[in-house]
Amino acid sequence: MRLEIPTNAERFGANTFYQVQKIYELEGGYGIDTEFDSPFHVIQQIPYDRLHEIEKDLAIIIPVKNERLRLLEGVLCGIPHACLPIVLSNSQNEPTDRFRMECSMVDTFCRHAKKKYLIAHQRSPEVARLFSDGGYLHLLDEDGLVRHGKAEGMLAGIALANLVGKKYVGFIDADNYFPGAVFEYVRIFSAGLSQSKSPYSMVRIQWHSKPKIVDAELFFAKWGRVTRITNQYLNLFLSQYTGYETEILRTGNAGEHALSMPLALALDYSTGFSVETHQFVSLMEKFGGVLPSPFPEIMKTGVEIFQIESRNPHLHEATKGQDHIREMIEYSLSVLWHSRICPALVQKDIARELRRLKIVRKNESPLQLRRYPELSTLNFSAAAAALDWSRHGNYTPA
Amino acid sequence: MRLEIPTNAERFGANTFYQVQKIYELEGGYGIDTEFDSPFHVIQQIPYDRLHEIEKDLAIIIPVKNERLRLLEGVLCGIPHACLPIVLSNSQNEPTDRFRMECSMVDTFCRHAKKKYLIAHQRSPEVARLFSDGGYLHLLDEDGLVRHGKAEGMLAGIALANLVGKKYVGFIDADNYFPGAVFEYVRIFSAGLSQSKSPYSMVRIQWHSKPKIVDAELFFAKWGRVTRITNQYLNLFLSQYTGYETEILRTGNAGEHALSMPLALALDYSTGFSVETHQFVSLMEKFGGVLPSPFPEIMKTGVEIFQIESRNPHLHEATKGQDHIREMIEYSLSVLWHSRICPALVQKDIARELRRLKIVRKNESPLQLRRYPELSTLNFSAAAAALDWSRHGNYTPA
Repeated sequence: MRLEIPTNAERFGANTFYQVQKIYELEGGYGIDTEFDSPFHVIQQIPYDRLHEIEKDLAIIIPVKNERLRLLEGVLCGIPHACLPIVLSNSQNEPTDRFRMECSMVDTFCRHAKKKYLIAHQRSPEVARLFSDGGYLHLLDEDGLVRHGKAEGMLAGIALANLVGKKYVGFIDADNYFPGAVFEYVRIFSAGLSQSKSPYSMVRIQWHSKPKIVDAELFFAKWGRVTRITNQYLNLFLSQYTGYETEILRTGNAGEHALSMPLALALDYSTGFSVETHQFVSLMEKFGGVLPSPFPEIMKTGVEIFQIESRNPHLHEATKGQDHIREMIEYSLSVLWHSRICPALVQKDIARELRRLKIVRKNESPLQLRRYPELSTLNFSAAAAALDWSRHGNYTPA
Repeated sequence: MRLEIPTNAERFGANTFYQVQKIYELEGGYGIDTEFDSPFHVIQQIPYDRLHEIEKDLAIIIPVKNERLRLLEGVLCGIPHACLPIVLSNSQNEPTDRFRMECSMVDTFCRHAKKKYLIAHQRSPEVARLFSDGGYLHLLDEDGLVRHGKAEGMLAGIALANLVGKKYVGFIDADNYFPGAVFEYVRIFSAGLSQSKSPYSMVRIQWHSKPKIVDAELFFAKWGRVTRITNQYLNLFLSQYTGYETEILRTGNAGEHALSMPLALALDYSTGFSVETHQFVSLMEKFGGVLPSPFPEIMKTGVEIFQIESRNPHLHEATKGQDHIREMIEYSLSVLWHSRICPALVQKDIARELRRLKIVRKNESPLQLRRYPELSTLNFSAAAAALDWSRHGNYTPA
């Protein structure tokens, strides 16, 4: 891959938020190109062997909820061979058992491709045992099963990835129509993570565009309404601490993102659709230097957050309507408002925005969303005993 | 890349037409996977180093005609670094000079990506001189310039690619919205060509699907009307010689295709939109064993034609209407009808089809299209002197 070296960054405590990087080549060459020998280049080449080193240690978590099997198959096809796909399904078991169909398709596909994989149902007693045996009960509901929700599936995915010894974890949605876009996302993950000088790093993808049908033609929208609003208040939040107005944060709702495992285990998470925005809140709270950090080691080493713009448009199965957009805005802004370090001015502006959008009424507070503490508090060795790997795919941890 | 080994093929003289192959992984691993050690596998892995060997010798010709610059930029981004893109433009010079804008964008992009490229205008006196000095006058019009038309641009591209010493040549349209799909096409070219045991080989892409907007929703059509009709008569043509009905040919209009240079120089070509269908006619005429072959060496070695199904839908800028569809059908069927070896039954059926579609009237013959003889008759060493490479990009032939 060939991409820009970011020239600009905002620093907030131990966090370095880099500006969005532009990609020049999806496939940037086999070995090191001597053209890059000079120290004065502003574009970097990340050769295949370097990407491969990351991808060997990278689990791709695919949260699934009743998406079409043919789309899921395309997503598997787009994931580079070295990565381990972990399918975390919350699909229905009845009247038709979608999960059984998913297991069968994934197994057949991976048998042909000779691809290693893991698959689990989010609501299975076995995945629940992983958290009960590991002593991390926050994720379990009154039935003792992992709660419903995408964030909850992501947490289960991170736990599984860590159990099998992966060093990085990335997230890809299951409803993408273009395997070539999925391929690019994973390459952005490995290229992004390979840039980090810190073991604590994150890569977030800014979509090139999202095609919409307008008057029987495709229109390639750049900014969705949710994204625009989330990023606006995120940047306002950041600028209240740095003292400089900024537009650097562009990926407040980036569903496609990847983390190094040590960072993934150190953050805390918020439920449902607020999970991506809340990652910024967690970074600012824990490593922003405003509150005492629970991880002095990370404060010393620093956290690097990369934002990279994909070259492929994001064309996925659109099934969600206007209500979903309002819900997304409410969730994203609520986690900012409820942050322990949210500046008063930002709280005031968010409250006004939520009232304007008729999401909260006067004198009402924004939604208080469920939060999950860092996964590093899970006892992984106790949890490991809970799982019979042979029942969850064809991958056996070393 | 990981893909099926074709289990079925039709042989016609020295030609082997393989059935469509399915892809399992766009990126099939860094080195050889020992899983494939057994000789009983039906899926093959083509590792990156093997693909890279082909891509170093592969020119990607991008015919351009007033397509949007941002789409062309995306196409360049999707082409693997080792390939040489050759942009063959027939864009307007006035009132705005689109070609100048293309040169400027391509140069800026490739300067950043450190990518080698060539660019030329199809109607430039310099490209014309290549053919006049080389003694191949068929391509020139009354003004002494290369004729208008996509096929004509493709021929100029093949000549340029051969002049700079490339061993393979592939074609990608400039109006593709998905760089990830472009990447897949090139990988299909290199994977396909790497399978051949003969120096005379061709790879043709069957699109996964072509998204259309139907009632404000996307519908992923598999077979366009032109494709369906062309393939029907192509298969009928073939089956009249083999004696077995067949559906093996699926890529009669494959704009995305690649050839080994020795085969590209040995075929003859038909003008305009008939060029892709006519490649089959040329293969059957020259190497089918029905007529004496002008290339006994190729008759002995054999020609291998691979068809591979892409995993990405083909989403391009749709600007062409109903008239274009009728023209495509007319062009494709006319070259079959006019073949010197077209069986009488096929001629009769095609004539009936063209009348049914109101493309030709009763007692009228289908269009006789201009044909260009094999490019191997061009004197390449005389032609080489005609070009000042420094004016056409940043690539200098060895």
